[in-house]
Amino acid sequence: MAHKAQDGAADTSGPSWHPVTKKKAYEQVIAQVEEQIVARRLRVGDRLPAERELATMLGVSRAGVREAMRTLEAQGVVSADVGTDGGTFVTTMSSEAITRILRLHVHLSHFSVPEVLEARIPLERRSARLAASQASEEDLAKMREVLDEMADPATPRDRFNELDTQFHVLVAAAGHNRLVTELTTAIRETMTGPIMHSFDDEEDWHARSASLCAGHEAIFAAIEKGDALQAAEAVESHIRLAYEQLHYHSN
Amino acid sequence: MAHKAQDGAADTSGPSWHPVTKKKAYEQVIAQVEEQIVARRLRVGDRLPAERELATMLGVSRAGVREAMRTLEAQGVVSADVGTDGGTFVTTMSSEAITRILRLHVHLSHFSVPEVLEARIPLERRSARLAASQASEEDLAKMREVLDEMADPATPRDRFNELDTQFHVLVAAAGHNRLVTELTTAIRETMTGPIMHSFDDEEDWHARSASLCAGHEAIFAAIEKGDALQAAEAVESHIRLAYEQLHYHSN
Repeated sequence: MAHKAQDGAADTSGPSWHPVTKKKAYEQVIAQVEEQIVARRLRVGDRLPAERELATMLGVSRAGVREAMRTLEAQGVVSADVGTDGGTFVTTMSSEAITRILRLHVHLSHFSVPEVLEARIPLERRSARLAASQASEEDLAKMREVLDEMADPATPRDRFNELDTQFHVLVAAAGHNRLVTELTTAIRETMTGPIMHSFDDEEDWHARSASLCAGHEAIFAAIEKGDALQAAEAVESHIRLAYEQLHYHSN
Repeated sequence: MAHKAQDGAADTSGPSWHPVTKKKAYEQVIAQVEEQIVARRLRVGDRLPAERELATMLGVSRAGVREAMRTLEAQGVVSADVGTDGGTFVTTMSSEAITRILRLHVHLSHFSVPEVLEARIPLERRSARLAASQASEEDLAKMREVLDEMADPATPRDRFNELDTQFHVLVAAAGHNRLVTELTTAIRETMTGPIMHSFDDEEDWHARSASLCAGHEAIFAAIEKGDALQAAEAVESHIRLAYEQLHYHSN
């Protein structure tokens, strides 16, 4: 409505130019599918109209519809079933898909270390708090196993880095909140490369790994005794210290 | 290594079967491009090898390379330039792309209200804290304008909902941390549909909107005076109350 009024007003003040939308046919098809999903008119498990039907309804070519479907499939939004009952269905997007996209995004957008840090700390504080009240015996046993392997001096640096990520993911998962877990995991995973780099450059590996292990043990102890606030504080100190070490080694 | 040992052990206990990886050619091309990005061997602005060259190097068809590039383009990872200097370049992924993917993901994964709440609260607490120390006069002026329009009883419910989202996005943006801003925005935007639904059902709209406005005013006041802790507390109370009202109206 506001837009219409503006156009009307522009009549007396000369022509009003708008940038041309160069949206391709397949992009428009994607946009419409997304609109239906967000409006909850299309839900997981629903079958999309057939290619020919969709092309007619949207006024685009069948090739445009096909391209849109392939893109949505690659993004994990829909999946195609073959066979007599075949068709294209709305799917549950996998955690891996979103982790992958977030990871790429963090790399390509050149978020600074403080930016990543400021997003990571509140999420991991929340993960740790949730874990302190929700962790099962099994969750704790898995964390213990990872910590024991990290404490072994024979563990090589790349394996140590893998286990480090695993520990943070286990804490997040122990909170039993999938969205917090995925965001935490994606952001932690973006740091794997830079962390590995600084591990490789580390001259006093013994001191560095001992310091990281001590941080993890403090988090684990707080979660084990169910102390939510202490778990949150422990995870924040650990992350801040780890970033200082990382920063020190990147310079 | 562990895997090899297992294979060896299986020799005496019969054949060992592994699921066949049905990764399509274009998926493998995508995976390789991503690998280079995460390893920082491909950076924003870099040109990818030509289609023919990439197809030869990776041992896939040119059609497979083309499909991969289209998918990566749709995801905002690369962009194609035409003309004599044309080619496919690595781009900075736009915020809209990630917000869009997160929004779809939250819808399609059926995250529960408590799951979204537990992810939203720590992010918005952090946003409010950052805003309290970083907000410029201009940031504050924009928030004030949105709040004034929300306070006007003539503002229709759908516009109120839009302004509500805008206020939370402005707070996040005033913290000047792009990653926190994007995650906050994406998660807030997933709630727009359910919130609108409950607004439409609201019988006492006057009381509901007044309560939401009071919450926003408290957040704004804390940010304006630079009180980080109070801003965080105000945002958490506001979100929890808003969800209680939302939940009440969804049942």
